[in-house]
Formats: sequence, C-alpha cells, structure tokens
Amino acid sequence: MICPMQTTTADFTDWMSTHQARVEQTLEQVLPSATIAPTRLHEAMRYSVLGGGKRVRALLAFAAGEAAAAPIDATAVAAAAVELIHAYSLVHDDLPCMDDDTLRRGKPTCHVAFDEATALLVGDSLQSLAFQVLSERALAPDPAQQLAMLRILAAAAGSRGMAGGQAIDLASTGTDLTLPELEYMHIHKTGALIRAAVMLGAACGTNLDPDGTAHLDRFGKFAGLAFQVVDDLLDVQADTMTLGKTAGKDAANNKPTYVSVLGVGQSRALAEELREEALTALEPLGPGARRLRELTDFIVLRTH
Amino acid sequence: MICPMQTTTADFTDWMSTHQARVEQTLEQVLPSATIAPTRLHEAMRYSVLGGGKRVRALLAFAAGEAAAAPIDATAVAAAAVELIHAYSLVHDDLPCMDDDTLRRGKPTCHVAFDEATALLVGDSLQSLAFQVLSERALAPDPAQQLAMLRILAAAAGSRGMAGGQAIDLASTGTDLTLPELEYMHIHKTGALIRAAVMLGAACGTNLDPDGTAHLDRFGKFAGLAFQVVDDLLDVQADTMTLGKTAGKDAANNKPTYVSVLGVGQSRALAEELREEALTALEPLGPGARRLRELTDFIVLRTH
Repeated sequence: MICPMQTTTADFTDWMSTHQARVEQTLEQVLPSATIAPTRLHEAMRYSVLGGGKRVRALLAFAAGEAAAAPIDATAVAAAAVELIHAYSLVHDDLPCMDDDTLRRGKPTCHVAFDEATALLVGDSLQSLAFQVLSERALAPDPAQQLAMLRILAAAAGSRGMAGGQAIDLASTGTDLTLPELEYMHIHKTGALIRAAVMLGAACGTNLDPDGTAHLDRFGKFAGLAFQVVDDLLDVQADTMTLGKTAGKDAANNKPTYVSVLGVGQSRALAEELREEALTALEPLGPGARRLRELTDFIVLRTH
Repeated sequence: MICPMQTTTADFTDWMSTHQARVEQTLEQVLPSATIAPTRLHEAMRYSVLGGGKRVRALLAFAAGEAAAAPIDATAVAAAAVELIHAYSLVHDDLPCMDDDTLRRGKPTCHVAFDEATALLVGDSLQSLAFQVLSERALAPDPAQQLAMLRILAAAAGSRGMAGGQAIDLASTGTDLTLPELEYMHIHKTGALIRAAVMLGAACGTNLDPDGTAHLDRFGKFAGLAFQVVDDLLDVQADTMTLGKTAGKDAANNKPTYVSVLGVGQSRALAEELREEALTALEPLGPGARRLRELTDFIVLRTH
C-alpha cells in the first residue's frame, strides 16, 4: 500500500517545485526590501532566508492546508511564518557561541558574510517578522482560530519547544544519551516546529474536525522525528557539497545522534518505522492527505 | 497647569508599587518554573526577567489601560508581554558581540551569570513567550482586536522597530549623528516599544474611539523620546550604583547620544519640551489619562 516511488513521480516533483516557488515568493514579499533602513540588517535578513533550503516545513504546511481545504494564499503566509522561525533558528545556531558553523545552504553563514552582531539582530528580527506576518491579515476562517495559530507557533518556537530543544542539545554535547532522552531532545529541537507547520497549514482551512486535527498532530510528531533520524543519517553518509552544510559535524562536535546511539542500521530501521507510523496516522484523512503521504516518503528517502 | 510634584504624591507612588507588583506577579506566573526542563534555560529566563527594573513600559500599559477602561487582568498580561520583549532585548544587547556589558539591574548580566549560548537562547525564548502569552487567553473585547495587539508588538520589536534601532545604533557608534538622525535611531530603538506598551494597554479596553487612540499614539511617541533623552542624561550624571547598570558607557563606547549632540543643558530643555508635548497629546483624554500624566513626570524627573 505504501509506495516509496511516489516521491519520484513527476506530478509530486511539480507540486513541490510549485509550492517551493510559492513560499519563496511570499517570503520575498514579506521581507523588508534591502533598500529600506536599516539596509544592512534587511540585506542580511534576505540573505539568510531567501534562495535556499528544501522548505520541508513550508511544504508540510501547504500539504496540511490541502487536507483541510485551506485557501492557498493563507497557507502560503502560514508556511512563510514557519520558514522565518526556522531561518532565525539556523542563523542563531550557527553563531560562534552555539555551533560555530561557517557554511549553510551552500553559502557562508550569516555571521561570516556579515558580522556577529548583525546575525544576532537578523535572528531576532526574523522571529518578530514571523509573528507579524501571522497577525497582519486574515488567514483563518475566524480571528479566534488565527489567534490559535499564533499560540501554536509561539509555543513551538519557545523554551518548551525549539529553543528548549536547542538548550538540551547544548547541555548533552559530549554526554551519552539514552534513546528516550535523545527522542525527547529532538521532539523539541526539530519536531516542535515541524508539528507546528502541519497544524498551521491545517488551521487555515475548515475541512477538519477535532479528530482529524488530532490525527494530523500525531502525523506531525512522527514526521518530525523521522526527519531528524534521517538528518542524523545524512550527517554521517552524505558529503558537505551535497548537504550544503558541514557534513560529519555531529561526530566532530561530539553530539549524541540517532546514529551514535543506535548505529546506522538500526537508525535506518527506525526511520522506516516512523514513516509507517506517520502514514498510519494519515489513513483516516483519506485522499485529501495525499501530499502529506508523498512528503513523508520524500522526508525519509531524501539524500540531502 | 503641569505640576511636576505630582510624581511624588503618595497616591501615585502607591499606584506605581501596586502595578509594579502586579506585573511582577504576572511575569512570575507566565515564566516557566525553573523545575521544568530545560531547567537551566528556565532558571536563566527567570533570572533575566524577575525582580528588577522600573517596569516603565508595564506602567505605561496599565495607565493606558485605565484610560481605556480595560480590565486589569488583561492589561497585566499585555504589560507582561511588553516587559518580556524588553527583557529579551536587554539580554541580547548585553552580549559580547553587542554592548558587551557585565552589569544589569544591579546584578551580573545573563551571559556572565550563565553563559553566552544560554543568554542567546534566553532572549530567543523570551521573545517567543511574549507572543505566546499575548495569544493564550482572551485579552481584548474581540479576537480581531487581540490580533491587532500581536501585530503592534511584533512590528515594534522587529527590524523596523526596536531591533532595527539597535542595528542603527551599532552602525552609528563612533560616528557623528545629526539631531534628526539621533531622533530617528531612538524612535526605533526605545520609542517603538514604549509606544507599543501604550497601545497594547489601550487595546485591552473599549473606551477609546479612533481619535482617542491617535492621541494616545502621539503621546507614546513623545513619552518614548523623552524617556531616551533622560536616559542619556542619566548615563552622564548618575553613578553605576544608582543606575544598576554601567554608568558613562555611552561615552566610553563612543556612542552618539542626546548629550553628545546637544550638551547637557539643551538635552534637559529638550526633555522638558517633550514632556509638554506628551502632556498636550493627553489633554483630549480628560481625567482618565491621569496616570499617564503622572508617569510622564516620573519619566522626565526620575534620577535612575
């Protein structure tokens, strides 16, 4: 029933390209022009957000929006907000006091291309912008539902979500984690925002009852973890050129990963297991969840 | 008509203490407990927010809320959200790549008491938390008005508000600014958030028509500038012990200030002029704006 080859169909590839272009266009519009003061900050914000990344989180928002019959204009803004949060986290994670990395999405990291103070303000400003775009125009069927979208994104980004996961990551560098501890870290660090992307896309629509929303949330949890397991595998197996970011840096930084805890074989098996859990969660949603199924395969079978 | 001695009335002092305690209590409640994982991050967030500061922004939100007949429970949350944004900005501004400061609110800065990576994540998490508390429960007469509150705060915090002002500040260190350039910088760096505090407090209420809101916004603009002029004067005239932060650091860091551009005498005259503009803006609001008047005097006549 589950066909991995779906990910390579021309139809899905077209869908991905179309929606990657769509979120890029929305990001281009919501980011202040580099001609507006402070110009260097705006230039650095655009440098850090535009023209890079697979936009997996945006694609998940679009796909969830389709499952909920959401208008694409609204979903594009929700997708852009999630990508702004993701981009801010990358800029801050790359800073010298964090991962101290020099390469991101195939180009110098923000603090290398600009400077540390600018990179700090870029991250700060991108986070504000995410909440600004999410509150600027009507996105959900009613304002109360849109407030819920802001609540979901804020919680996913904060100390009990992504930023908290990053803190746990820092604290666990050089230590041995158990599998449950590792899972706890990634549910926060990567999982929370991926889950939020799914929920935000769906919140723009009207087609899901509470049960449907719960299924989607469960899907988001498994998809987020699967994404991270594959990320850990790629860090070991792919090269820097293909990844567009420094390969092998988890081991170099002595960070616990699925591969360091489980080994390659068991990590691959876990990714497959999570993929099946994710697809099972989607079953009650019927044909509307088609793109979410295809994205699950894309996430697990990707090579970069 | 304008009586500076209002600021020293026992009644106003009581009002300030009561409302400072109120926002402190709200902050205490919305900040995650230091026993919740990640505990070190939460401990550092609480360290950076609680038990310090004059809470001028919160007081302005409460006073504007009174002018708009807002329920105090809602205003307290709006006030707390603004203070969270302010606290995040202080933590990030104090980092080595920015102002590299070691003392804040009479105690070691966050990155000194903890570490740089934690301070970075503290600021990031406090920003998220501000938007989370502002979207978690009903604060305004209707959800659309609450969405507007989020929009106001996000815009005030971002690259065309506070963070943008910080970028201009960095870029202007060591240069000579004209008075309009200095004003432009401070309208963003300090003014935007003070203005937002006023607007957010008022948005929790129902008592203001569009004209009233415009008067308040005008008041917020002048009050914000007055606050900064006095801040620049205090940096020269007060000592570190009284300020609770490093005194004389503007000159030491070669930063343009009102004092460096205008001198002490003219800066003092400007502060007085801005105070009168602020009070004039409040005139149409009648007796409801009483606390805002008293706060204006407090801002201009304070000694720390």
